[in-house]
Amino acid sequence: MNTKVKLNRAKLLISCPEKPGIIWTVTNFLLEHKANIVHFDQHTTNPQAGIFFMRIEFDLEEFDSTFEKLEKDLHVMAREYALDWQLSSNERRKRMAIFVSKADHCLTELIWRWKSNEIPVEIPMVISNHADLKELVEGYGIPFYHIPLSQETKEDAEQKVLELLKGKVDFIVLARYMQILSPNFISHYPKQIINIHHSFLPAFVGANPYVRAFNRGVKLIGATAHYVTNDLDEGPIIEQDVQRINHRYTVADLKTAGRHVEKRVLAEAVSWHVEDKVLVHGNKTIVFA
Amino acid sequence: MNTKVKLNRAKLLISCPEKPGIIWTVTNFLLEHKANIVHFDQHTTNPQAGIFFMRIEFDLEEFDSTFEKLEKDLHVMAREYALDWQLSSNERRKRMAIFVSKADHCLTELIWRWKSNEIPVEIPMVISNHADLKELVEGYGIPFYHIPLSQETKEDAEQKVLELLKGKVDFIVLARYMQILSPNFISHYPKQIINIHHSFLPAFVGANPYVRAFNRGVKLIGATAHYVTNDLDEGPIIEQDVQRINHRYTVADLKTAGRHVEKRVLAEAVSWHVEDKVLVHGNKTIVFA
Amino acid sequence: MNTKVKLNRAKLLISCPEKPGIIWTVTNFLLEHKANIVHFDQHTTNPQAGIFFMRIEFDLEEFDSTFEKLEKDLHVMAREYALDWQLSSNERRKRMAIFVSKADHCLTELIWRWKSNEIPVEIPMVISNHADLKELVEGYGIPFYHIPLSQETKEDAEQKVLELLKGKVDFIVLARYMQILSPNFISHYPKQIINIHHSFLPAFVGANPYVRAFNRGVKLIGATAHYVTNDLDEGPIIEQDVQRINHRYTVADLKTAGRHVEKRVLAEAVSWHVEDKVLVHGNKTIVFA
Amino acid sequence: MNTKVKLNRAKLLISCPEKPGIIWTVTNFLLEHKANIVHFDQHTTNPQAGIFFMRIEFDLEEFDSTFEKLEKDLHVMAREYALDWQLSSNERRKRMAIFVSKADHCLTELIWRWKSNEIPVEIPMVISNHADLKELVEGYGIPFYHIPLSQETKEDAEQKVLELLKGKVDFIVLARYMQILSPNFISHYPKQIINIHHSFLPAFVGANPYVRAFNRGVKLIGATAHYVTNDLDEGPIIEQDVQRINHRYTVADLKTAGRHVEKRVLAEAVSWHVEDKVLVHGNKTIVFA
Repeated sequence: MNTKVKLNRAKLLISCPEKPGIIWTVTNFLLEHKANIVHFDQHTTNPQAGIFFMRIEFDLEEFDSTFEKLEKDLHVMAREYALDWQLSSNERRKRMAIFVSKADHCLTELIWRWKSNEIPVEIPMVISNHADLKELVEGYGIPFYHIPLSQETKEDAEQKVLELLKGKVDFIVLARYMQILSPNFISHYPKQIINIHHSFLPAFVGANPYVRAFNRGVKLIGATAHYVTNDLDEGPIIEQDVQRINHRYTVADLKTAGRHVEKRVLAEAVSWHVEDKVLVHGNKTIVFA
Repeated sequence: MNTKVKLNRAKLLISCPEKPGIIWTVTNFLLEHKANIVHFDQHTTNPQAGIFFMRIEFDLEEFDSTFEKLEKDLHVMAREYALDWQLSSNERRKRMAIFVSKADHCLTELIWRWKSNEIPVEIPMVISNHADLKELVEGYGIPFYHIPLSQETKEDAEQKVLELLKGKVDFIVLARYMQILSPNFISHYPKQIINIHHSFLPAFVGANPYVRAFNRGVKLIGATAHYVTNDLDEGPIIEQDVQRINHRYTVADLKTAGRHVEKRVLAEAVSWHVEDKVLVHGNKTIVFA
Repeated sequence: MNTKVKLNRAKLLISCPEKPGIIWTVTNFLLEHKANIVHFDQHTTNPQAGIFFMRIEFDLEEFDSTFEKLEKDLHVMAREYALDWQLSSNERRKRMAIFVSKADHCLTELIWRWKSNEIPVEIPMVISNHADLKELVEGYGIPFYHIPLSQETKEDAEQKVLELLKGKVDFIVLARYMQILSPNFISHYPKQIINIHHSFLPAFVGANPYVRAFNRGVKLIGATAHYVTNDLDEGPIIEQDVQRINHRYTVADLKTAGRHVEKRVLAEAVSWHVEDKVLVHGNKTIVFA
Repeated sequence: MNTKVKLNRAKLLISCPEKPGIIWTVTNFLLEHKANIVHFDQHTTNPQAGIFFMRIEFDLEEFDSTFEKLEKDLHVMAREYALDWQLSSNERRKRMAIFVSKADHCLTELIWRWKSNEIPVEIPMVISNHADLKELVEGYGIPFYHIPLSQETKEDAEQKVLELLKGKVDFIVLARYMQILSPNFISHYPKQIINIHHSFLPAFVGANPYVRAFNRGVKLIGATAHYVTNDLDEGPIIEQDVQRINHRYTVADLKTAGRHVEKRVLAEAVSWHVEDKVLVHGNKTIVFA
């Protein structure tokens, strides 16, 4: 949910080795900077000796004067306490590139949530290996780049895409993009590429999940949004959901029904990413939703 | 749902190669036998050349005089039309053996639904490789047999169990029974053994699904009730459901939360089996629920 | 689900007083007309003396030659057996008018499902009491009529709308249309106007359901698609669903979250209506989904 | 979830008018008492001038020496900062009385979760206006009191019950107890009586919700656990859930299906209450689940 974006609000994500007083230290820091805490979420993998995760959403009364100061002081505190941190101001919208192939359901859902300000991002571009969705995308005033791709041209194509993205994009959403990205490409956007897989992972990793779901005779189909890593469909899961089906569903019906789960699950995951509600820990996520 | 069991009601399951007029043929047959159709369900894998499945629930006004006649005439029609059929009268309750190990949640749910007449069966016996649940079971007046089992004694133990069951039991429910049945054992009860697997199959086939769900970082856990075949966790799925979890759940929490899905899913599947709502086709089920 | 519309397929809906042999009679009739039954659904409110409902989907090999004959013969049978019936061929798409005000989420979903052939209808027009969505609608090549409306002009406005619809539209979808239709208007489209109410009816009948849900502190919000009758929010319910919320949701967040349930529930209900899967009985529906 | 109860763990609930530094103040206090925070949840109705709610779960290394000191110091801090607070140690189990009438499904579920240590309470007694469940309850070694009740004897009966409870019970669960408690009775256990209502409130307040759900033709039935106040079925909602039904369900089927939702929803709500995860604010709850 993100109905109305408050501009003088910021979000601080922290992870660090568990140690007594960490909450106090950070809240003290914010208090000194006159930050007013609105939401506070915390998780520890083990209160004795685990990793501590924290998300704080706070308002800044005098934003312009304090945000840079805040960042500078955070650097100091981070060194002292061995914190990993990420600070985002609502003033600066994240920039999201969408990769598509031919299917438009996930794209349409993302664009609708963007237009209705439900997902507060900028969309500097949509990139596709097919030209089919060009008109749809440009109809919304979003630049569309058609970068065809074959097994032989993949390296060049990815290079072209990287150049298009360079400096213009914070994260990438694979909205039913039917290509596997190379490790080199992924290394440019670690934990910043979100994919939607059309199954309830880890069931039906890989190709044709709906055909395999049909053959196995499952009673629910699902979809999984996850960060992309070098291991296909094995990255940290952000969100999953399922939909009840029955023996009457053909493979084609599964695909149709599945589209609605896919678009919903992907849009939720993107929302949380945009609102800095997701922390990655190894191959898992902590989602403060 | 099976709130009140009408005694003069019967259920007819039919499967056969698809051919025009099959519904007419069967309803004509029932009409001639003065059977009043209450529920009629049908499915075809392909209207041109597939397999046709049918479930009819009907009332018989003069039950005593016609049920045997009905069966005899069904034999004749079945030969002529190459039907597989199964006829059950509500007058005769199915006899269910429950196999358990140490966990009691699925057992308790089944017993409660049996006592409250929600699952209208007889329970001639509970069999276990441990003695832990003896008192609980006998407290309900149900015979409990403790048949210990090691890798070496498995064959003998299974033989003993088969003798106990012989002529007394129509189907078997593995209510978190932590042993793998041999192909020989299974061959005595084809499509008549229901297992509950503590994952959303085909995810996490085999041992320790909750540990593996924890490690994979899934956002939903599930349970699957299926008929037992020789391929572990690969038999026809009857029912599945899931439960939302989050990063706060430890493995122990997953086990606790999972119990509630397991018992619900197993009890639903058993209900449908008892009410003759499940037809098996290859490795899949048609469930007329 | 309606992935691929088979053109030589037809659907027959029947309701009549329960009487022995009704299924046989109808299947016999179809057999004589060389209709091959693909799906058969049936329901009775009481097998002894209730109302019987039936939905049959069937293929016609020689469609052109037999459909009119089928209708004529149905008339004869209907008289004899006191049947209410409705026959639809997939060859003729239903024509759906959409009424909107300012919100576009339900409209967008319906248009997407129409464009992707998931809801196989024609959309001859969209009608609104506001001009806001004109550009969106016309972008899809759909005629848009802006008919403003005040308390004083309501009667005239409705008259204008009725003239626009006349002979061009089979049913109407109120896709968050924020006006109450008069009994006179409704009488022109009995059981042919579908509304989406933004609550889990009968909770929060009337205005501002999200505000009232917030004040009551419910833990789930819902949406309800129903046929419109003269009693506000009291017509036969076609579909409902809910969405989990928590104490963090403001009224604005409820509205945002609710939109996704609304659009999904409405689109499902419209699908079923279009596929002739809904029968109305008094103030309730039988949905053969 | 409450798989394993750690004994040296405590939970602190705080509510107070929002004011900068409140999180810092409380965490500082805990730090000084060498409390190690394990879970921290927070909510504010309005970051500028609302009410602030906080739940902290923490471990105490030297429990015996510090718990009383902690309470004394909390008193001091509370006065200074106008805090409402509640401190619970896992060492002391809450004492829960269960009130029942004739239905046993909610009772059975609560007892099973208690026996399996999923709900870590003591059950000093079960009280009923009928004798039906006496044997069941006593079979678990729990005292059962049969206090019959008519319109005329209600005042006396409630008096008797209050005496039975006095000093022995912390909170009361109405597990399908079919009597309305008087304002006098309720005043003895403010926010400490949990009821399960067999509908999705505010739909079907009052008697016979399943009959009314059947007549209205809803597509989902529900259950609601709430704290009891003087306004029937109007108290703060703790948890709700729903179950999909269809036109085949009779009223009896709704009751059967509803039992499973009722018992699940009630048990969840009781779990959260026992784990001090529920704060009441006016007629609403904040649930840190």
